[in-house]
Amino acid sequence: MEQDIRIADMNVGQQVQGFYVLKDIRCKTTTSGSPFISARLMDATGEMEAKIWNYSGPITEEDSCKVMLIRGEVSEYNGTPQFVIQKICLASADDHYDVKELVPSAPLEENEALAEVREILASIDDGEYRRLCQAMLERHLDAFLMIPAAKSVHHAFRSGLLMHTLNMMRAADFLSQLYFEVIDRSLLLAGTFLHDFGKEREMVRSELGLVTDYSAPGKLLGHLYMCAQEVCELAREQGMSEEKTMLLQHLILSHHGKLEFGAAVEPQCAESELLSIIDLMDSRMEIYAETLADTQPGSFSGKNFGLGKAVYRHT
Amino acid sequence: MEQDIRIADMNVGQQVQGFYVLKDIRCKTTTSGSPFISARLMDATGEMEAKIWNYSGPITEEDSCKVMLIRGEVSEYNGTPQFVIQKICLASADDHYDVKELVPSAPLEENEALAEVREILASIDDGEYRRLCQAMLERHLDAFLMIPAAKSVHHAFRSGLLMHTLNMMRAADFLSQLYFEVIDRSLLLAGTFLHDFGKEREMVRSELGLVTDYSAPGKLLGHLYMCAQEVCELAREQGMSEEKTMLLQHLILSHHGKLEFGAAVEPQCAESELLSIIDLMDSRMEIYAETLADTQPGSFSGKNFGLGKAVYRHT
Amino acid sequence: MEQDIRIADMNVGQQVQGFYVLKDIRCKTTTSGSPFISARLMDATGEMEAKIWNYSGPITEEDSCKVMLIRGEVSEYNGTPQFVIQKICLASADDHYDVKELVPSAPLEENEALAEVREILASIDDGEYRRLCQAMLERHLDAFLMIPAAKSVHHAFRSGLLMHTLNMMRAADFLSQLYFEVIDRSLLLAGTFLHDFGKEREMVRSELGLVTDYSAPGKLLGHLYMCAQEVCELAREQGMSEEKTMLLQHLILSHHGKLEFGAAVEPQCAESELLSIIDLMDSRMEIYAETLADTQPGSFSGKNFGLGKAVYRHT
Amino acid sequence: MEQDIRIADMNVGQQVQGFYVLKDIRCKTTTSGSPFISARLMDATGEMEAKIWNYSGPITEEDSCKVMLIRGEVSEYNGTPQFVIQKICLASADDHYDVKELVPSAPLEENEALAEVREILASIDDGEYRRLCQAMLERHLDAFLMIPAAKSVHHAFRSGLLMHTLNMMRAADFLSQLYFEVIDRSLLLAGTFLHDFGKEREMVRSELGLVTDYSAPGKLLGHLYMCAQEVCELAREQGMSEEKTMLLQHLILSHHGKLEFGAAVEPQCAESELLSIIDLMDSRMEIYAETLADTQPGSFSGKNFGLGKAVYRHT
Amino acid sequence: MEQDIRIADMNVGQQVQGFYVLKDIRCKTTTSGSPFISARLMDATGEMEAKIWNYSGPITEEDSCKVMLIRGEVSEYNGTPQFVIQKICLASADDHYDVKELVPSAPLEENEALAEVREILASIDDGEYRRLCQAMLERHLDAFLMIPAAKSVHHAFRSGLLMHTLNMMRAADFLSQLYFEVIDRSLLLAGTFLHDFGKEREMVRSELGLVTDYSAPGKLLGHLYMCAQEVCELAREQGMSEEKTMLLQHLILSHHGKLEFGAAVEPQCAESELLSIIDLMDSRMEIYAETLADTQPGSFSGKNFGLGKAVYRHT
Amino acid sequence: MEQDIRIADMNVGQQVQGFYVLKDIRCKTTTSGSPFISARLMDATGEMEAKIWNYSGPITEEDSCKVMLIRGEVSEYNGTPQFVIQKICLASADDHYDVKELVPSAPLEENEALAEVREILASIDDGEYRRLCQAMLERHLDAFLMIPAAKSVHHAFRSGLLMHTLNMMRAADFLSQLYFEVIDRSLLLAGTFLHDFGKEREMVRSELGLVTDYSAPGKLLGHLYMCAQEVCELAREQGMSEEKTMLLQHLILSHHGKLEFGAAVEPQCAESELLSIIDLMDSRMEIYAETLADTQPGSFSGKNFGLGKAVYRHT
Repeated sequence: MEQDIRIADMNVGQQVQGFYVLKDIRCKTTTSGSPFISARLMDATGEMEAKIWNYSGPITEEDSCKVMLIRGEVSEYNGTPQFVIQKICLASADDHYDVKELVPSAPLEENEALAEVREILASIDDGEYRRLCQAMLERHLDAFLMIPAAKSVHHAFRSGLLMHTLNMMRAADFLSQLYFEVIDRSLLLAGTFLHDFGKEREMVRSELGLVTDYSAPGKLLGHLYMCAQEVCELAREQGMSEEKTMLLQHLILSHHGKLEFGAAVEPQCAESELLSIIDLMDSRMEIYAETLADTQPGSFSGKNFGLGKAVYRHT
Repeated sequence: MEQDIRIADMNVGQQVQGFYVLKDIRCKTTTSGSPFISARLMDATGEMEAKIWNYSGPITEEDSCKVMLIRGEVSEYNGTPQFVIQKICLASADDHYDVKELVPSAPLEENEALAEVREILASIDDGEYRRLCQAMLERHLDAFLMIPAAKSVHHAFRSGLLMHTLNMMRAADFLSQLYFEVIDRSLLLAGTFLHDFGKEREMVRSELGLVTDYSAPGKLLGHLYMCAQEVCELAREQGMSEEKTMLLQHLILSHHGKLEFGAAVEPQCAESELLSIIDLMDSRMEIYAETLADTQPGSFSGKNFGLGKAVYRHT
Repeated sequence: MEQDIRIADMNVGQQVQGFYVLKDIRCKTTTSGSPFISARLMDATGEMEAKIWNYSGPITEEDSCKVMLIRGEVSEYNGTPQFVIQKICLASADDHYDVKELVPSAPLEENEALAEVREILASIDDGEYRRLCQAMLERHLDAFLMIPAAKSVHHAFRSGLLMHTLNMMRAADFLSQLYFEVIDRSLLLAGTFLHDFGKEREMVRSELGLVTDYSAPGKLLGHLYMCAQEVCELAREQGMSEEKTMLLQHLILSHHGKLEFGAAVEPQCAESELLSIIDLMDSRMEIYAETLADTQPGSFSGKNFGLGKAVYRHT
Repeated sequence: MEQDIRIADMNVGQQVQGFYVLKDIRCKTTTSGSPFISARLMDATGEMEAKIWNYSGPITEEDSCKVMLIRGEVSEYNGTPQFVIQKICLASADDHYDVKELVPSAPLEENEALAEVREILASIDDGEYRRLCQAMLERHLDAFLMIPAAKSVHHAFRSGLLMHTLNMMRAADFLSQLYFEVIDRSLLLAGTFLHDFGKEREMVRSELGLVTDYSAPGKLLGHLYMCAQEVCELAREQGMSEEKTMLLQHLILSHHGKLEFGAAVEPQCAESELLSIIDLMDSRMEIYAETLADTQPGSFSGKNFGLGKAVYRHT
Repeated sequence: MEQDIRIADMNVGQQVQGFYVLKDIRCKTTTSGSPFISARLMDATGEMEAKIWNYSGPITEEDSCKVMLIRGEVSEYNGTPQFVIQKICLASADDHYDVKELVPSAPLEENEALAEVREILASIDDGEYRRLCQAMLERHLDAFLMIPAAKSVHHAFRSGLLMHTLNMMRAADFLSQLYFEVIDRSLLLAGTFLHDFGKEREMVRSELGLVTDYSAPGKLLGHLYMCAQEVCELAREQGMSEEKTMLLQHLILSHHGKLEFGAAVEPQCAESELLSIIDLMDSRMEIYAETLADTQPGSFSGKNFGLGKAVYRHT
Repeated sequence: MEQDIRIADMNVGQQVQGFYVLKDIRCKTTTSGSPFISARLMDATGEMEAKIWNYSGPITEEDSCKVMLIRGEVSEYNGTPQFVIQKICLASADDHYDVKELVPSAPLEENEALAEVREILASIDDGEYRRLCQAMLERHLDAFLMIPAAKSVHHAFRSGLLMHTLNMMRAADFLSQLYFEVIDRSLLLAGTFLHDFGKEREMVRSELGLVTDYSAPGKLLGHLYMCAQEVCELAREQGMSEEKTMLLQHLILSHHGKLEFGAAVEPQCAESELLSIIDLMDSRMEIYAETLADTQPGSFSGKNFGLGKAVYRHT
C-alpha cells in the first residue's frame, strides 16, 4: 500500500491510499441491478477515471469536488487507467492535507504576487484611480487571491486570476513608458488591474476554489457589465470625476477588443485599445505555455480549442 | 412676399419671409475676401441649402439649430434650389411660432400616446416590474416625450422614442398572448418599455429637441449599458428580487440581438429573444414607412442606408 | 404484463405489450453469427433503443416507421434503457389503435385550427389573393393538416405546418393593423398562408406522417422555388394580375430573409420584410417552447442546435 | 465640319456632324433662368459629356437612348472634354446609319456565333435536352442575339449574352470530355446554354438594345427563378422526364455557386458544380479582357468593381 | 486458406494468407495484462480493423505502413468486420508482390501520363519558361511520379499529383486558346505544371508513398512558399528575366485564389486568376468522382468534408 | 515677401518664397486653351493645393516629388487655401536646404536609434541569429534608416521603418523576459528586427524617400514573401541550421497574424504569435498617436481608415 502517491505517478497494479478530490460523481446501476459510482479522481498533478463498485452511499453526487480519504487500486479499462476505489470517506476537519497538492494552482507564491500588485497600485500617480483600485482589492481580497481566470481555456487553476492580472500589470507598466506619448499610465494600470474582477460573480466555485460552472448572472449579464457597474458605484461613492469614471468603465466594457468577442463597446481610446491587446497577449502566451508543456520538442501539439490550431514546440 | 411658406412648397423665384431653423451654420470667406454664411434652412417639411452673402454677424456658428426670423429669395445653383437670405435675426421670447411646424415630429398626439403607455404599464400584473417602470417614466418624463429614437436611421424626429416605444409595447402586448406558453407578459412589457431609455444620455440635443451628435458616454459606454445600470440601481432601491433585477438587465443588455449588432450579451431567455425581434421589426417597418413615402408606386427607392438595399413600393 | 404503457412511463424490469412504431430498423449479425435487429421503439411520448435478438424475419428494414404489435421487456444497457422485443408482428387493418398516441402531434385540435385558418382567409379583402389561397388549401388539404413544418429543428411533429401557419397568420393579422400605413393586409396574409406549402414536396413522409428524409427535389430545388412556381401557375390559371402574381412569388421566394439563410432573393417590399420576421419569430418561439419544456426553472438548457446557444428558464 | 467622326477620335476644338446616341438626358435651368439639356453623347467607341444651351425642345428626357443627327463642337470644361450641341433632331426612318457604330457590341459576327451555338446544340446526344434547348432558342431568338449579359459588370454590350453563352458552351464541351467520368455532356451543355435566358426579363432595354435598368420582376424574383420556371413549363409541355426536368432546373437555380452570391440552392451534382465554375471563369476572363484593354503593359489597372481589386498587365 | 484475397472481397469467416500493409499500429495491453496490437489492415482496395492478440513482438509501432506477410481470419466485432491476425512477419527483399495492389493508386499508366506531360512542356513557346519546367521535372522526377496530391481531401493516392497536374495542364492548354486575348499560354502552362511541386516537402511519406503526416516545414512555411522559393532560385540560375521570374512566383503564391484559402497573395493577372480557377475545378471534379463512386444512382452521398455538403448522383 | 515660411504657418494673403516639394504635378489646359499646372505644395509640416497659371514648362509631370525654389502667394478657392505660384525652378546641387524640413520624418534622432538597434542585436545570445541580423543590417543600412513603414496607414514618413522596428524590438526585449518560459529571446528579437525588411522592395520611392507607389513585386509577391526568401538565402550562405532557418522564415511569413490580414501562414509557435501581436500593437499605438495629435481633448477624431473607427482623446 503506497501513501499519498500523486496521480501523475500512479502505475497500473499499485495499491494506493491517501487524500484526493473526487469530482463529476454520478450514481448509477449496472445491468444486473447493482449500484455503483462513476467519478473522476483528481489532485494537483492530474485526473483519472474512478469507480466504486457495489456502493450505495453515504457519498452521493452532492459531494462532488470535496476532499476524501480514499483507498484503492490502479487498474485499466479499454486501454486507459481506471482507479477502483475500495474504501472511501469524506475528509474531516481534523485531517491534515495540503490543498495545493489536491488542486492545480498557479506557479507563483501568492503573498509575493500580492505584494507586487500592491506595489504597482501604490505607484499610480492619479489619486482617484489609485484609491479606487486599492478599495476594490481590499473588498475582494479573498477571491482575488484564489479564483481561476477561466473555467477551462487558460489560467483555469487556483490563483489564475492573480497570475493573469499581475502579468498584465507588469506589461502595462512597461508599455505605458514605451507609448508614453499616447498612454496615461494611471488609467492603463487601473483598467488593467480592474478588468476581470467581474469573474468572481461570473463563475460558480466549490469550497476548494474549483470552478464548477458559469453562474446565471455570469451568462445573462456577463463579467464585463458586472465589473463596470460595481466600479461605477464605487467611483461615485469616492467622488471620482465624471470623465475618469466614464473612462474606467469604458476600459472594462471594451477589453475583449471586438464586439464579436464579447466587448460591450469597442476600444475607442488609446488605453482601452492597449488593454485589449495586453489581455489578448497574456491569454495567448498562457495557452502556449500550457499547450507546449504537453508537447515534445520538434513536434506539434494536438489542435488547441482556445487557439483554434495546433502549435509547434521548436527544439 | 409670401409669409411662412413651408420649405416643401417653395419654388424658385419666390420671395419668402417667416420663422425657420438654421442649422449646420459655417462662417466662410469668398476668394475676394468677402465674409458669408453657408447653412441649411429647415422646417418640419424639409431642408434647403442657404447662403447669407456679405454677412459678418451677429449670427455665428454657435447659433446653429436655433429658430430665426428670416427673409429671402428661393434661387437655384447648379440645378439645386438655394435660399439666399437677405435679412435674419434670432427669434425672441415674444415671437409666436409653432415648434411642431419647424422641426419634424412623430405622427402622433403626445398626450394620447402617453396615456396609452401609462395604461399598458398599469396592466402589468407583476407589481415589482410595474412600479419600476412607472418610476422610470416619471423620472424621465420630459425626455421620453420629446427625444428621437435615433440620430438618423429611423424615428429620427421629435417624439420618435415615444412612438417607437408605444408601437413596440402594442406588439409585445399581443405577442405575449400568442406565445403565452413561453412568455412572461410582465417581464416582456417591462423590458420593452425600458429598453431604449439610455438614448437620453446617448445623444446630444439642441433646445428644440434636434439631435446634433452622440455624446461621449453614448459612444464609450453605449445606451444599453447606461440603461441597464440605471435600472439596476432603481431596482435595488425599490427592493426588487435578485432574479427579476437580473432578468430586466438582461433584456436591456441583449436587445440588439447579436453581439456584432452591439448586444452586450445575446438573448438567452424567451422574453429577451422576442424583445430583440420586436425591436428589429419596428425599426424595419419605420424605415420602410419613411423610405416608401418618398417613392413612387410601382418603382424602387434609392439604396437605403439602414436596410442596405433599395425597396419596392407596389401599386 | 402491462398493456399499451406509454414509453415515457416505462421502467426497467417491466413486461410490456401493445402497439408501437418501430423506426430506424437495421438488420445485423452478432460476432457469433446470430442475426438480430437494432431499432428505435417510438410512440407519441418518446423513444427507446430496441433489440430483437435471434431474429431473421419477417420484419425487415423496409418496415421502418410502421405500426407493430409488440411484446417485450424494459431492460438496461450501459446505463441507458433498452427494450428487448420478444414477440412482434405488423399491425393489420383490423387492429384498433390511435395514431395520435403513436406519433407526436401539435398541441391543437385540427378541425378548430383549420376552421380558424379558413376564417382568416375569408377575411382577405382582395378577391384575387383570397381565391388563390382558398384554391391552394383545398388542393393540398390532407397534407396541410398532417405534415410537420420541419424534419427536426422546430414543429417537427404531426400537424406542425398547420400550427406554424396558423400562429403566423394570427400575428400577421395583428401586425398588418399595427403597421397599416405600409402593409397591405391582403398581400401579407396571402403570403403568410402560402409561404411553406413547398414543404409537402420537400420532405419524404411515411404513411404515419413521419418525415423520414428530404426528397431529391427538396434538396435540388428547395421548397421556396417549388412553392413559388406552383403559386405562379395557379395565379395564371385564375387570371391574377401580373403585379400581384409577382408580389406573391416574391414573398414566398424571400421569406428566409437573407441569401445566406436560403432566400432566393432578399425581401424588398414591406410585406416580404415583415413576413420574414414573423417566420423567424414563430420558429424561434417554438424552439424556446420545445427546449424550455425539458429545462428546470432557474437553470440553463443544453446547447440548442437551432438557436446555436443554451437558453435560460427563469423561475 | 467633320462628318461622323468617332467619339474616341474627337479632339477639343473640332466641329462635328453625324449620327450619335444621346443618353441620360436631363432638362435643367441655369441660375439665370435659361433652359438647357445635360446629357451623354455616345457611340460604339465611347462617351462624352454633352450640353445643349438655351434649348427648350422638342427633344426631352423621354428621348434618352435614341439615335439623333447632331451638329456641334468639342469643347472642354474643368479639364474634361464636353460636347456643345448646336443643332439636333431625332433620326428618322429614312436615315442611313449603322447601329453597330453607335452602340458597343461584342467582338463577334452574330450569324457565325449563332451557327456555332446551333451546331453544339445539335450535337447533344440526349433528345429530350436537345429539343428543349432548340425550342428555347427559337422562342427567344431575337433577344438571344442582341441583349447584353449584364448592365455593367461584364459583357455589358450588344450581343454580350450570345458571346458569354457561346464561350461557356465551348468550355463545357471540352471539359465534359476531360471529366467524362462524372459529367453527363448532354446535361452540362443544356444547362450551360439555358442558364442566363432569364436575363431577358431581368433587364429593361431601349430599342437599340441598351440596358437602361433592371426590371421589377428582375429584382423581386431574379433571373435564376424566372429562367428555371420557364424551362420547367416547357419541359412539361414537351413531356421531359421528371428527373431531367429537375436536373435542368437545378443547374439554372444553382449557377451562381453559393447562396451569398445569389444561388437559390447550392450546386449538388457534378454538372451544376462545373457549370457554376465555368460561369465564374468566363465572367472573370471577360472582366480581365475589358480591364486590361485600358491598362498599359507593365502597370496596374485602377481598382475594378467586379473583381474587387486592381490587376496587372504584364509585358 | 485463401491466398492474397483483396480486402474489398473478404467475408466474415474466411481464412486468409497474403501480403498486406499494416498501418496505424498501436501496442496495447488488455485489462488482464496481456499485450496485443491494434492496427489497420490495408491494400489498394480498402482497409479493415485488425488485431494481433497475445502478441509482444517483434513487430512494433515503428513498422507502421510496411508490407507484411500475414495469415489470419476475417471476424466481426460490434457489427463491423475485424481481421484477427494469427501469424505475421515483415516482407523481405526476396518476396514477390505488386505495390500497386497494396496501396491505392491513380487510375492512369504512369509512363503514358509522364510522356504527355513532357509533350505539353515541349510545346511551350517561351524558351525560358520551358527550360525551367523541364529542369524542375528532371530534378523531382521520382517524387512527381509517385506522391499523392493531398493527405486526405482529394487525389490522396499514389501518383495523385501526376494525375492532378496532367489534368490541369490539359485544361490550361484548351483554355489558353479560348481566352487567347488575355492569356499567355506559356506562362499559364508553366505555372500550372509547377504550382504544386512544394507538396513534396510539405508531406511526410512512408517508403510505399503513403502520406503519414504533414511535415514541420509544410505547416510552418506552406507548400506555396517553398515552391515559389525553389522556382525563384532555379530561375536565377538559368538567367530568366526579372519580369518572368516574378510572374511565375506570383502564379504559384496565388493559386489558392483567396487569402482565407491560404493564398499568400491574391491573383492579380489573368493567368494567375485562371490557374486558381483550374485548380479549384480539378479538385472539385475529383472529389465528386471519389464521392459519387460510393453513392447509388438516384441518391445523395453523405456530407463530404472537402465540399462541405452532400452531393447527388443522378440516374 | 516672407522667406521659407512653413506651410502649417501660411495665411491667406501672404507673399512667400523658399524651398518646397511639389508633388502630384499634372499639366492641364483651361477652357480658353491656356496651359497650367495643378499640383500639391508640400513640406514637413503639411500640404496645400497649388496652381501655376499660364505655364508651359520646363517643369513637367516628371518632376513630381522634387525640391524646387518657389515664389508665390497664398490665396483661397472655394473656402480652402490655394498657393498660386508666380516663379519656380528646380533646386540645384548648390542650393542649401534641409531635407528634414521638406519631408515629414519620424520624431527620433537616426544615429541614436541605429545605435540602440545595434546594441539590442549585439545582445542576442544565439550566434547564428545574431550574425544573420547584423549582416542584413549592413546590407540594407541606407534603406533601413530612411524608408517609411507604409505608404499611408501608419509610420508613413521618413525613417518610419526605423522607428517602428526599434519600438517593436524594445517591446520584444521586455516581453521575452515576461514570458521567458515559452519565448526564445534570440528568435523573437531576430524575427522582430527582420520582419519588415521586404518593405524596401515593396514600395517605390522618390529620391527624397517619399513613397510614391507600391512596386509590381510588392503587389504580386508581397513583402512577407520577399523578406523570407532573402533571409533564407542569407541563412544558407551563413550555414544556419535547418530548424532555425525554418523558424525565422516562419516568423516573417506569419507576422500579419491571420490569413485574411495577409499572413502567408498563421503563427504556430509562441514567438511568431507574440511577434504578430507586437506588430499589431505598435501599428495601432502609432495610428492613435497620429490621430490624436489632430484631435481636441474631450472630443472624437473623424473616422480613421486604419482603425475603422473614430477615437476619443480624453482630457
